[in-house]
Amino acid sequence: MKSEPDVRQTRRPGRRPGPTETRAAILAAARELFAEKGYDGTSLRAIARAAGCDPALVHHFFGNKEGVFTTAMQFPVTPADVLPRLLEAPPDQLGETLVRIFLEIWRDEERRAPVIAMVRSAMTNEQAATLMREFITTALLRRVAAARGTSLLRAEAAVGQMVGVAILRYVIKTEPVASASEEELVELLAPVIQHYLG
Amino acid sequence: MKSEPDVRQTRRPGRRPGPTETRAAILAAARELFAEKGYDGTSLRAIARAAGCDPALVHHFFGNKEGVFTTAMQFPVTPADVLPRLLEAPPDQLGETLVRIFLEIWRDEERRAPVIAMVRSAMTNEQAATLMREFITTALLRRVAAARGTSLLRAEAAVGQMVGVAILRYVIKTEPVASASEEELVELLAPVIQHYLG
Repeated sequence: MKSEPDVRQTRRPGRRPGPTETRAAILAAARELFAEKGYDGTSLRAIARAAGCDPALVHHFFGNKEGVFTTAMQFPVTPADVLPRLLEAPPDQLGETLVRIFLEIWRDEERRAPVIAMVRSAMTNEQAATLMREFITTALLRRVAAARGTSLLRAEAAVGQMVGVAILRYVIKTEPVASASEEELVELLAPVIQHYLG
Repeated sequence: MKSEPDVRQTRRPGRRPGPTETRAAILAAARELFAEKGYDGTSLRAIARAAGCDPALVHHFFGNKEGVFTTAMQFPVTPADVLPRLLEAPPDQLGETLVRIFLEIWRDEERRAPVIAMVRSAMTNEQAATLMREFITTALLRRVAAARGTSLLRAEAAVGQMVGVAILRYVIKTEPVASASEEELVELLAPVIQHYLG
């Protein structure tokens, strides 16, 4: 989770909107642009323009495009939080590290809900599928594959494994995977993720 | 795919409904009962009663409960078609056999669509999730696990792998997995499915 800069300010009539309004305007503009143009087709500059503010402010509030996206989508995690852990893991613990990162995100229903909501939207709406595809590919798959010298296809097989188990565990709720402990899941899945990415 | 018995008959006014009507009535009753009572809570006898016909007729049209279910849900495949292939595969070709069965089902958009529709419903509707959970567990997971002497959890990891890759390939459409050939996918996934079930 990113800590937000403390930028409280009093709203003065007739002046430009305060930071809370600007932040909300940026997120509203971002949601609209991402939905309309996709992830790759939306720039920080375009979001700033649509929100009527300076691009430096978007950067100030959210860091980068990923930050705007994950906040706008209420995503529980940004690649910036996760990738360093993944890329710095000892080569023989890559599988276990990735499984533990997924399990941490899934652990709390509040963090899990927006991810499941995003998969749900992607399953019923072509636009949402495009958005999710571009975000996953640009922000996650390409970087993991490039940094670990593995193929995109193998990175996708690893992500597919984790997404499929998440759907069985949290959505369809088949047993025993729904009630399995995190340690059981690490033991079950880490060797396979290691096989794909190692 | 099951071949349907040829039971054409002329509808005679004042007589009991002909086979086409009876078949449709059975399917309508089945859909309602499965949705209301779940898969495990619905019997052939209850379906027959709700459709106002003899249980022998349900058996005649659909074989068994699985047959009624897969037809009512427009499922492209029944476990009865698939399980023998899976259970008779040489132990060292189990992974490849399962991957090939999934790929065959996914190959045609017409066969794939109802499966994706079922996952979609399960993701948005608790009742549909229960139905899918019970069907998958009773008709598929338990039998595969028992027959191959593997744990249910490992069977679920294998199914999770295939479901997750299907979602990436056909719904989110990330590349290269969306355009990968079936042979590439067999090479990619068979060793992992073999690891889980072998």
